[in-house]
Amino acid sequence: MMNKFKNLQDELENVALDLNEKMDVLLPEVAKCGEAKVLEAMRYSTLSPGKKMRPFLVATTASLFGVGREISLQAASAIEFIHVYSLIHDDLPAMDDDDMRRGQPACHIKFGEAAAILAGDGLLTLAFDILADESTHPSPNVRCELIQAAAKASGVSGMVGGQMMDLNAQHDKLTIDEIIHLQRMKTGALFRLSCEAGAILGKSGQKQRIALRGYANAIGLAFQITDDLLDAEGSERETGKPVRQDKSKGKATLVSALGVDRARNQAKMLIQQAQTHLESFDKRADILRELANYIIERKR
Amino acid sequence: MMNKFKNLQDELENVALDLNEKMDVLLPEVAKCGEAKVLEAMRYSTLSPGKKMRPFLVATTASLFGVGREISLQAASAIEFIHVYSLIHDDLPAMDDDDMRRGQPACHIKFGEAAAILAGDGLLTLAFDILADESTHPSPNVRCELIQAAAKASGVSGMVGGQMMDLNAQHDKLTIDEIIHLQRMKTGALFRLSCEAGAILGKSGQKQRIALRGYANAIGLAFQITDDLLDAEGSERETGKPVRQDKSKGKATLVSALGVDRARNQAKMLIQQAQTHLESFDKRADILRELANYIIERKR
Repeated sequence: MMNKFKNLQDELENVALDLNEKMDVLLPEVAKCGEAKVLEAMRYSTLSPGKKMRPFLVATTASLFGVGREISLQAASAIEFIHVYSLIHDDLPAMDDDDMRRGQPACHIKFGEAAAILAGDGLLTLAFDILADESTHPSPNVRCELIQAAAKASGVSGMVGGQMMDLNAQHDKLTIDEIIHLQRMKTGALFRLSCEAGAILGKSGQKQRIALRGYANAIGLAFQITDDLLDAEGSERETGKPVRQDKSKGKATLVSALGVDRARNQAKMLIQQAQTHLESFDKRADILRELANYIIERKR
Repeated sequence: MMNKFKNLQDELENVALDLNEKMDVLLPEVAKCGEAKVLEAMRYSTLSPGKKMRPFLVATTASLFGVGREISLQAASAIEFIHVYSLIHDDLPAMDDDDMRRGQPACHIKFGEAAAILAGDGLLTLAFDILADESTHPSPNVRCELIQAAAKASGVSGMVGGQMMDLNAQHDKLTIDEIIHLQRMKTGALFRLSCEAGAILGKSGQKQRIALRGYANAIGLAFQITDDLLDAEGSERETGKPVRQDKSKGKATLVSALGVDRARNQAKMLIQQAQTHLESFDKRADILRELANYIIERKR
């Protein structure tokens, strides 16, 4: 497995390293001041280990259009800040009530609920601050487009709406279509945003943007199914997080609705779809093709 | 009192009415869907009665530069959404733990904590969505400038930082300078943003923008002192909200630090400063002059 995806895994690691450096610069420094705690909480949660799948998608899709890493990393950081904000708020006791995140105590466990709420608020706000900044892209039209795409993916028509739906759902009564709809909003929207951000930064044509959106939808859902499969079948040691959570919390997933085998087949079909969406791209998209395969074969 | 400020009060009411109409259009409609609850919560908190002082400042400062109400109301709505998001999150049990807001149950009392957290998140995100939209201003540079000003006023260098500082402060040990610094971040930042938004929409010169920032700083602090005076001296019937809260919660304010008389004098001096900042403006700024006087004479 390590060998099969060596190229991709090196690249994922490279992006993660570059991204952490960039985020470190973009995050406000922790000085001795009255608001130090919220600044520490923001750094703690963003600079923690994570797959950095979304920033990787931003950087890689942008590179299809000749946009260099040093440019795309700034938008990628903003999207990672939005992702981490959503994790911090989702983990709160009033929401999913999770104590652990990325192998370390969740933000509210480490810093208390008030600081965690504010750290999430601060990260979301910082993301828009960065996206609006001239250094993200010289064209203000591109920046406004990024901002609107990010807002629509994160707001009530995306992540926020999906999280509300998830909390309110009678999970034992969800149909397969409803589960897919929920996951498209809750986790799919940010995958879509990440791929579209690359296209926006690269001022791609409409056709290419639609293709990347299709790719993102397919891998986003496949990613979620794999997460659910790992939760149903994996071990805490392997995955780095508690398992059997969906079952104990009574959460409907495509795995609970379809069963393990059909869910795994569904994920494979989605990966084939993802590959089809990339057909019009040249070999610069090879790493995205590899990523699609990796997404369903990963063990954590 | 009513007569003295009749012109201003009519104008405040006009803006509030127009704003509510505009916000009603900008807020997502509540349909029968899984995320309906967060949409209801967003409407409940934004369309509730409130002074709408910040939107009024946006509309009025914009009009100094010939920007019509129909244009400025959109940016004003975005800033009001940011204001309301901050109220919703500040009222949460983990934060200030307030059950009532604007004469009605706080968002988390009415809809539960999860929906309240998400409604705040949704409003903050919607604000940036609106500010990035072409219909807010034809120039993408102006839109990016608005977005960055809004993000800086709301984030860790403004509201979020001020709220963290407020929660963590040992209030009995705060110096007067520290109280002023805290209030500049916590409530002053949004007053400043509101006045600057008008200047940004109107593409004002640097000198005028600095003057309006000075005006905003002065009335923002005077507004806060008056709020604290009403809390110390007013009645719940008059002010429409519980009083003696600062004392019972042990909050340091300029009133607790200076005493009632010196605090009132301080507010008067601030209003004189505010008037000085307006000297370079013609009679179109009269309503801002009236507002400054009104701010310290209001009874609620």
